[in-house]
Amino acid sequence: MQSLQAKASEWSGVDSADAFSIDATNLFQKLGLQTFINLSTNFYNRVYDDGEEWFRSIFAHSKKEDAIQNQYEFFVQRMGGPPLYSQRRGHPALIARHRPFPVTHQAAERWLHHMQQALDSTPDIDADSKIKMMNFFRHTAFFLVAGDELKKNQIQQTPCKPGSSNHQTCKNF
Amino acid sequence: MQSLQAKASEWSGVDSADAFSIDATNLFQKLGLQTFINLSTNFYNRVYDDGEEWFRSIFAHSKKEDAIQNQYEFFVQRMGGPPLYSQRRGHPALIARHRPFPVTHQAAERWLHHMQQALDSTPDIDADSKIKMMNFFRHTAFFLVAGDELKKNQIQQTPCKPGSSNHQTCKNF
Repeated sequence: MQSLQAKASEWSGVDSADAFSIDATNLFQKLGLQTFINLSTNFYNRVYDDGEEWFRSIFAHSKKEDAIQNQYEFFVQRMGGPPLYSQRRGHPALIARHRPFPVTHQAAERWLHHMQQALDSTPDIDADSKIKMMNFFRHTAFFLVAGDELKKNQIQQTPCKPGSSNHQTCKNF
Repeated sequence: MQSLQAKASEWSGVDSADAFSIDATNLFQKLGLQTFINLSTNFYNRVYDDGEEWFRSIFAHSKKEDAIQNQYEFFVQRMGGPPLYSQRRGHPALIARHRPFPVTHQAAERWLHHMQQALDSTPDIDADSKIKMMNFFRHTAFFLVAGDELKKNQIQQTPCKPGSSNHQTCKNF
């Protein structure tokens, strides 16, 4: 089985070195908390107003202010700031927490479309940070598409046990 | 639905503030890379030699050296060091990556038993770091048990859509 990381790179067109170049700079120190709050607010304003009902409906059960907080706290934590997300909600567990939602290739592209627009219209995000963040977001979006596809195999999949026939699945997951 | 974090706290007996007190100190800077390598080597030597076949068999499809590397790279990344794990394998996605394995309450306790012994017999880990790490490990082990239980609902669970009956699941996941 191709790894989650390999699928994310192939589908996103972003290799993992570029995706995780967010770790070469401390983007939280560079941009500050308020910029992350502004970015997530800008992003979810677009998502909750999306004219594409199929995409907007994915978020229909969450309050916008909760979605904003979950997102900026995760971004802050992942990009060099305090672990706000884990203190409140535990491990990010990105794939598992997206499990109730249909994270398709099409949904990933729509998410990225709004995020690109949000990045371009949030003040105080320099060009270099924008490229780093967009590479990270693009790779992560398709990492989650790869994670979503695990659901398709859920009924057939049996736990890994010695001598079982799903050896490769167990090894390479 | 009770959140993953709430279940982890209840079952582990460790509240989230104690679990994430690993973030109050940079344990990677305090302990150094070699100590993390030694800890994971010590831990997996115990696991792969476990007289309890039911537990040892969970790891039977992975090479011991791979298990050691995956673990210490994640610990290093999570405890203040360079993001070794993500550079090589992507997001930790802890619940999804444990999906092929039966992460039961009993397995969590056995894992923690070996980890406590490994911590106690690895040189250069001071008492305070040991307490912080064990709280983190205990809470995380039961966070994964909570994540494992999601598998039980996988066939019944439908994606979140407006007006669907699984509103609470969608909101609180």
